[in-house]
Amino acid sequence: MSLSELVKIKKYNEGRPYTCEDEVVRESPVTLFVNDRELATLVCTPDSLQELALGFLFGEGILSAPQDLKDIKVNINDGLIWVDTASPTPAGQNFLKRHITTCCGKGRPTFYFINDARGLKPVPPGDLRLTPDNITSLAAMLEDSARLFRSTGGAHGAALASPEGIITFYEDVGRHNAVDKVPGFCFLNNIPLSGKILVLSGRISAEILIKAARLGVPMIVSRSAPTSLALQMADELGITVAGFVRGRRFNLYTHPERIKDIN
Amino acid sequence: MSLSELVKIKKYNEGRPYTCEDEVVRESPVTLFVNDRELATLVCTPDSLQELALGFLFGEGILSAPQDLKDIKVNINDGLIWVDTASPTPAGQNFLKRHITTCCGKGRPTFYFINDARGLKPVPPGDLRLTPDNITSLAAMLEDSARLFRSTGGAHGAALASPEGIITFYEDVGRHNAVDKVPGFCFLNNIPLSGKILVLSGRISAEILIKAARLGVPMIVSRSAPTSLALQMADELGITVAGFVRGRRFNLYTHPERIKDIN
Repeated sequence: MSLSELVKIKKYNEGRPYTCEDEVVRESPVTLFVNDRELATLVCTPDSLQELALGFLFGEGILSAPQDLKDIKVNINDGLIWVDTASPTPAGQNFLKRHITTCCGKGRPTFYFINDARGLKPVPPGDLRLTPDNITSLAAMLEDSARLFRSTGGAHGAALASPEGIITFYEDVGRHNAVDKVPGFCFLNNIPLSGKILVLSGRISAEILIKAARLGVPMIVSRSAPTSLALQMADELGITVAGFVRGRRFNLYTHPERIKDIN
Repeated sequence: MSLSELVKIKKYNEGRPYTCEDEVVRESPVTLFVNDRELATLVCTPDSLQELALGFLFGEGILSAPQDLKDIKVNINDGLIWVDTASPTPAGQNFLKRHITTCCGKGRPTFYFINDARGLKPVPPGDLRLTPDNITSLAAMLEDSARLFRSTGGAHGAALASPEGIITFYEDVGRHNAVDKVPGFCFLNNIPLSGKILVLSGRISAEILIKAARLGVPMIVSRSAPTSLALQMADELGITVAGFVRGRRFNLYTHPERIKDIN
């Protein structure tokens, strides 16, 4: 299925219209069933749906290793995915559901309670080290790969990378979906995420940090902005965040020890 | 509470770092209780929370007129909102939940089923008419208002407008939250949304179209891209969509009858 559609539009320039065709990113609801129970409807670009489903379930903690997956079937035309797991699963949980009843008496309840609620553990320091040029090169490679964004202006890109280059890349109308397809690919192909870099076109929000921590990814690089909560979490969870990576400039927000400065 | 935070960062330029302060958009989870039942946690910029809560409930169909609201209390420091409604409410529903069991046998199931599921009705034609210059002026006014975006690069803007100018404007780290604050303001101030224009910085996705249709807004103007599903829905729901409004150029995708062309 094509990732975009051609539509007839009127283009206006200086008040004057003309009719032409334009390419629009495809958006479609896809419903995910786990062990025959309806879990979620993801509104996405209907492509790489196996990767999307597995990455979503991995990020939600419903799958944690390839052997947890028994079977996956995709009906792309009707937007339906069925996943069978090796063992029974708990009910789908709210991503950022907080433990309200235990919310008082800590210094920064907002963060601690999101963290506590999902049992996230800090990513180990590891030996991943990048030069500033590695960072700007990865962002440039992401931009080069972003065909759907260039043709429609309506897609987000996400890649898994090593310091030398991009390992896998996906685009989707949804910022979270693009990110989810990356661990989905790794899950299907038995590729470890630890020691790798998540390279994104979109903003670095708290939910993206939660995904990265759950996946054990020690570094996030994006051409967009981070949020305050994402940075609090990155600090505590041992994740390096580089934002606004554009041309040869970027901002390094957290855990600078993974960047090798020029002396 | 400030909408942004100052953080210490390292800025890199051509491989060389220097330390400085940078302004980051504030993101914080806020939990919404309706009639003492926990309904949702919205991850948002903690500002205008009354507007956010009411707009969210209005968009979800849980509130439909100002008299449906009995009481609203906000605790901004702990991120808690309590809403009491005049009559008991049904359980919170999934936004784009589809009626899977009745999914076969229609030409374009994707759209019809989202539509059917929520009982959306087309927006009446009405007498709203804009010139191409009205459209580009409204987008320019939105850009002028976007202080949080200019200082952090991490916020979305949403405004309600008449052809002559902006009536109210909000910014939020979440694209949907910014949009929700607009009807929340209208709800609090008894301002009708029919015959008005929603002016956005972010992309026009199907969920934004659902909100607009539910609010009876006949036109959406954005500097960003629309999606294929949003355009299908706009076509069927009688909503004019103008996208990529930048400088004196824009694309008109649906219901062009509301634009007065120069002859």
